[in-house]
Amino acid sequence: MGDKDRAKVIFQPSGRRDEVPKGITIIEASRRVGVDIETLCGEKKVCGKCKVRVEEGFFEKFGIHSSISHTSEWQEEEGKFITEEERAAGYRLGCCAKVEGDLLIFVPEESRAGKQVVSKAARDIAIEWDPAVKHYYIELKEPSFDDPTGDFERLTEVLEAEYGLKGLEIDYLTLMKLPSVLRGAKFKVTVAVWMDKEIIRVLPGEVKDYYGIAIDVGTTTVAAYLCNMATMEVIDTVSMMNPQCKYGEDVMSRITFHMMHEDGLERMSNDIIEGLNKLIEQACEGTHPPKKKVKGDNGDEWVEEPEEGKTYLRLSRDDIEDMTLVGNTAMHHILLKLNPEYVGLAPFPPVVHRSLDIKGRDLGIRINESSYVHILPNEAGFVGADNVGVLIAEEPYKNEEMTLIIDIGTNGELVLGNKDKLISSSCATGPALEGAQITFGMRAAPGAIERIKIDPETHEVDYKVIGREAWRSYSKAEEMNTKGICGSGILDLLAELYRSGVILKSGRFNPKQKSNRYRKNPENGQGEFVIAWANETAIDKDIVVTQKDIRQIQLAKGALYCGCKLMMRRMGIEKVDKVKIAGAFGTHVDREKALIMGLFPDCPIESIIAVGNAAGDGARAALLNVEKRKEANWVARNVEYIELTVEEDFQQQFMQAMQIPHMTDNFPHLKGLVPDHILNQK
Amino acid sequence: MGDKDRAKVIFQPSGRRDEVPKGITIIEASRRVGVDIETLCGEKKVCGKCKVRVEEGFFEKFGIHSSISHTSEWQEEEGKFITEEERAAGYRLGCCAKVEGDLLIFVPEESRAGKQVVSKAARDIAIEWDPAVKHYYIELKEPSFDDPTGDFERLTEVLEAEYGLKGLEIDYLTLMKLPSVLRGAKFKVTVAVWMDKEIIRVLPGEVKDYYGIAIDVGTTTVAAYLCNMATMEVIDTVSMMNPQCKYGEDVMSRITFHMMHEDGLERMSNDIIEGLNKLIEQACEGTHPPKKKVKGDNGDEWVEEPEEGKTYLRLSRDDIEDMTLVGNTAMHHILLKLNPEYVGLAPFPPVVHRSLDIKGRDLGIRINESSYVHILPNEAGFVGADNVGVLIAEEPYKNEEMTLIIDIGTNGELVLGNKDKLISSSCATGPALEGAQITFGMRAAPGAIERIKIDPETHEVDYKVIGREAWRSYSKAEEMNTKGICGSGILDLLAELYRSGVILKSGRFNPKQKSNRYRKNPENGQGEFVIAWANETAIDKDIVVTQKDIRQIQLAKGALYCGCKLMMRRMGIEKVDKVKIAGAFGTHVDREKALIMGLFPDCPIESIIAVGNAAGDGARAALLNVEKRKEANWVARNVEYIELTVEEDFQQQFMQAMQIPHMTDNFPHLKGLVPDHILNQK
Repeated sequence: MGDKDRAKVIFQPSGRRDEVPKGITIIEASRRVGVDIETLCGEKKVCGKCKVRVEEGFFEKFGIHSSISHTSEWQEEEGKFITEEERAAGYRLGCCAKVEGDLLIFVPEESRAGKQVVSKAARDIAIEWDPAVKHYYIELKEPSFDDPTGDFERLTEVLEAEYGLKGLEIDYLTLMKLPSVLRGAKFKVTVAVWMDKEIIRVLPGEVKDYYGIAIDVGTTTVAAYLCNMATMEVIDTVSMMNPQCKYGEDVMSRITFHMMHEDGLERMSNDIIEGLNKLIEQACEGTHPPKKKVKGDNGDEWVEEPEEGKTYLRLSRDDIEDMTLVGNTAMHHILLKLNPEYVGLAPFPPVVHRSLDIKGRDLGIRINESSYVHILPNEAGFVGADNVGVLIAEEPYKNEEMTLIIDIGTNGELVLGNKDKLISSSCATGPALEGAQITFGMRAAPGAIERIKIDPETHEVDYKVIGREAWRSYSKAEEMNTKGICGSGILDLLAELYRSGVILKSGRFNPKQKSNRYRKNPENGQGEFVIAWANETAIDKDIVVTQKDIRQIQLAKGALYCGCKLMMRRMGIEKVDKVKIAGAFGTHVDREKALIMGLFPDCPIESIIAVGNAAGDGARAALLNVEKRKEANWVARNVEYIELTVEEDFQQQFMQAMQIPHMTDNFPHLKGLVPDHILNQK
Repeated sequence: MGDKDRAKVIFQPSGRRDEVPKGITIIEASRRVGVDIETLCGEKKVCGKCKVRVEEGFFEKFGIHSSISHTSEWQEEEGKFITEEERAAGYRLGCCAKVEGDLLIFVPEESRAGKQVVSKAARDIAIEWDPAVKHYYIELKEPSFDDPTGDFERLTEVLEAEYGLKGLEIDYLTLMKLPSVLRGAKFKVTVAVWMDKEIIRVLPGEVKDYYGIAIDVGTTTVAAYLCNMATMEVIDTVSMMNPQCKYGEDVMSRITFHMMHEDGLERMSNDIIEGLNKLIEQACEGTHPPKKKVKGDNGDEWVEEPEEGKTYLRLSRDDIEDMTLVGNTAMHHILLKLNPEYVGLAPFPPVVHRSLDIKGRDLGIRINESSYVHILPNEAGFVGADNVGVLIAEEPYKNEEMTLIIDIGTNGELVLGNKDKLISSSCATGPALEGAQITFGMRAAPGAIERIKIDPETHEVDYKVIGREAWRSYSKAEEMNTKGICGSGILDLLAELYRSGVILKSGRFNPKQKSNRYRKNPENGQGEFVIAWANETAIDKDIVVTQKDIRQIQLAKGALYCGCKLMMRRMGIEKVDKVKIAGAFGTHVDREKALIMGLFPDCPIESIIAVGNAAGDGARAALLNVEKRKEANWVARNVEYIELTVEEDFQQQFMQAMQIPHMTDNFPHLKGLVPDHILNQK
């Protein structure tokens, strides 16, 4: 694959990628692919700002991790900014290290010129307070000759008398600490009880506030919600790239990595577990005052710099008393070191459906040492605990309305139904709708095009980038600093290209172009359309959409549309009452554009609702309400999973669905949104 | 303490001890204290048979582990027989290393001239088969498109349909292995289920026999019973010294060690856990063919030498699917790393009474990785799970008869009662009845005097040693090879000294001696009585009993008698219907002698029953019958613990009880056993 003088580079966490000539520095490569790395000194190797971590090799889905170095030799100057430990972990200066082969490069937060926008924020959903872990305050009598009852029985007798908690057990590690906590607290303690069943922590005195964390492990992004379990308040939302991305971008390539490497499962699991630990640490760190480096007697020291008048919770991992996890079935299995092989092979049986309660310590997850991690149940091999999370957050099974729920991540998951029946399915949308595999695709970060308009008369383009209020038409070219197109921009792009007549229903460029933005790429002869001219960009290149890009987006939208349609056919319905779009994608989507582009069957625009990271909301609901856990187990076994690829006419349906909009279906709600002559194209 | 030119030495596991002059070799010291170490070459440093492990320092109850070497320098010859690893572990050759200070010396099995007699053998008690872990064989259908149910649900649905097991959970580590076991076994598997609740192992094919281990952790001795859980057969009994002996001989000194050392609890716990792991390994090893060392291409190799026609179970630790543990409250707490401090302080509350089910892996105990260890409940601070074991083995609460159960180990535990009421107590018998703290006391091993008769007319002594059928009077002097006196011999000794009139009721030597066996020790002027003349011994010394020895035995028997009597007073009874003697001591005891000596209140001789290691039997009952576990929890909370030392007249009662027999009590059943003139002494 590819020219031997060129190498493939991917920058994380932005996900930007390209082939670049071998021999250029990482900084130079970052410019070519539109990634901003700090270079204060202008590459004079003296500021150390351009520190990056190089993760070599393994790109190809079925490739093998290469042991040959893909960067140039270590330079003396790098030693001034990179410790021995960091060096061992793969850190280099971007201005020193040259690209000698395929590279995966991680740009740490502090080396990035623009900070990524976290789109997996917590949404307000109504949750009734009834968490699995509850706090009980009790005061005990001290032991005496008249009553020499042991510590544990002394505790549980009062918990039964005052709170009706019967037959309580205690985690062994908490039991070990019991005698000293009781005596240190003069027998006045707060007891954290899991599921009214097991004591998992005993704290001195009365402690009302306590904490838990709900985590959504996506194929690409991991989001965590740190919650006060007493008040249900979300204290912080933190997120990170799934560290498994280096093993493959999608579910199937990770399953393949496991099959090709004896220790593949172990490595991928350990990476995500370690990632979760860092995320938990980060969430706790956020409850402490910021720190500043000062010169101390023994070199540099970090001292706290609390803001005046502000109080800090100062949580540590021991304070995280409960945790819930959602993820698709493959992420679920890999995290739990359950063989994911059969999930990828027909008939795709998972190792387990039901929810699991596993001690954090057994998983290597560092929360309160006696606490459980609750992992939500899986529906089927391709519809996992994340979809169950969406369902318990949205509760379609409680309504009359026929609801279609679309969760677009790296994999598309679909649920259709109401209180009478629910069916689910999955479709291989791929990462195109998230900006990957698109020439100038990038993640939602400053400089990414998020909105596009194309004038049907002139085919002139107007657009807006993340991080800048004013549209292109109200800005000077040099003010834009455009870098690429993110997910919501891509959706706009296809809809606008179609509505304005730049492309035809089939997705091909219209031979009749009205501006100079359309051209053939001189290198490969492919058609392309310029969205932003080089002088508007931070990368000194025209940002274009190619015929191949359009095809990629069509494949994704076709998979999704075809999935929806086949499900409706199975359900025996012609139209849906409501469409809910979940996932980061849903938060930024323009409903009108989604409708025009034909992501899903026709529906009144006001019935299309973006529900944000509903999977994460479901994890949060299960954290704060134990009935939601039961509901999850019920729904996981009562949604009928439908494997769409086995439908006889699947290929034909899929081909038709790639048209914008679907070839033969009716779209009454597109009237007025798209000019008639465009809609009526043959 | 002691002369600066002398050092204290203790040999384990025999427990023999003495002060010896500094500068003699360990072999020489072993002879002086009557311990047999192999010396094939006659101390020419060429055979390597006399390998011992030296554990220095710490003897005094409140002492600190010394870092000064208490042995002479390493000699070149030792290197021929002792590897670097063994050297680091403290191994020396007994003929090379000289005693330079106090020493604790462990004589490994292979260096011992006589093998210790395991007295904690399993007894036949009636147990109904109903173990906590049961095996279920099932055959599953393979997943298909019509039925793509996940592995765990596939398994549990059949277990519910065929065996009525509802709501089964699965241990996480077993879940991890499930998909490959199922497919490897073509979906025909045997499932090990704990408490009809949790799957802890899945084995390919049909597996009927399975295994568990019941362990009694005594203060001094640890005994383990490896059982076939399907047939209830005891496959092997293995035992060892409690490795915590080096921290102190009795319960209080170990609690003190914890209080004096920050890591004391951790060290003592780790030692016993490691000891249990070795014991489990040893039990498994016994189910494999013996091994022989042969010369291979790459040096020495161990090869199996199976006996012809014999089949071997070849168990590994993974095959131990269940485990039960008993021990006194302090041993229980120390093993579980529960602070034992308060167990030693009034009002002696334990950390926990009820039984515990803790994953072996959480304790560091290496059995099947998903299995639980069931720890029986504690009654009170001084009456622990071992006593509960005795109770569920003997079931006094099921009978009308008023039964007194005496468990004599390093600590004495007493239970009195019947189906209407049970009370328990403990008494500080100390280790004298087991042979410790007695000048020529030793454990039950070949050469130990186990039976003694003294002629009332002549005060001549006849005796029998372990390992030889013929009594002294039927043997030549040089045939005896006598080494010391063990527990059962000590009991005979006091009874016979009293019955024959060698000593008086008060325990003092009778001034009217009828043989030349009585003399004053020229070194300390103390009275002593010769049991075996030097020419009958393997240690070339007269084996004597001193006035101090007699006082030690009286203290022990007094504590026991006083305990029994005060309990009877509390219960409001004058006599008991039955006396059961548990513990290793009980197995060897001569009932008549125990009665004469006044170990417990008067009782018809036929109503005195030795019940062996009933604590271990209880552990075994709990291993094989889950109802016994419930019974144990019930009985632990329904036995009333009585602290005897707080009784007003305790001191007076104790003093009176030291008399042989009790000063004022009536002993109708001694009539005929002891001459009237002896009984009627004032």
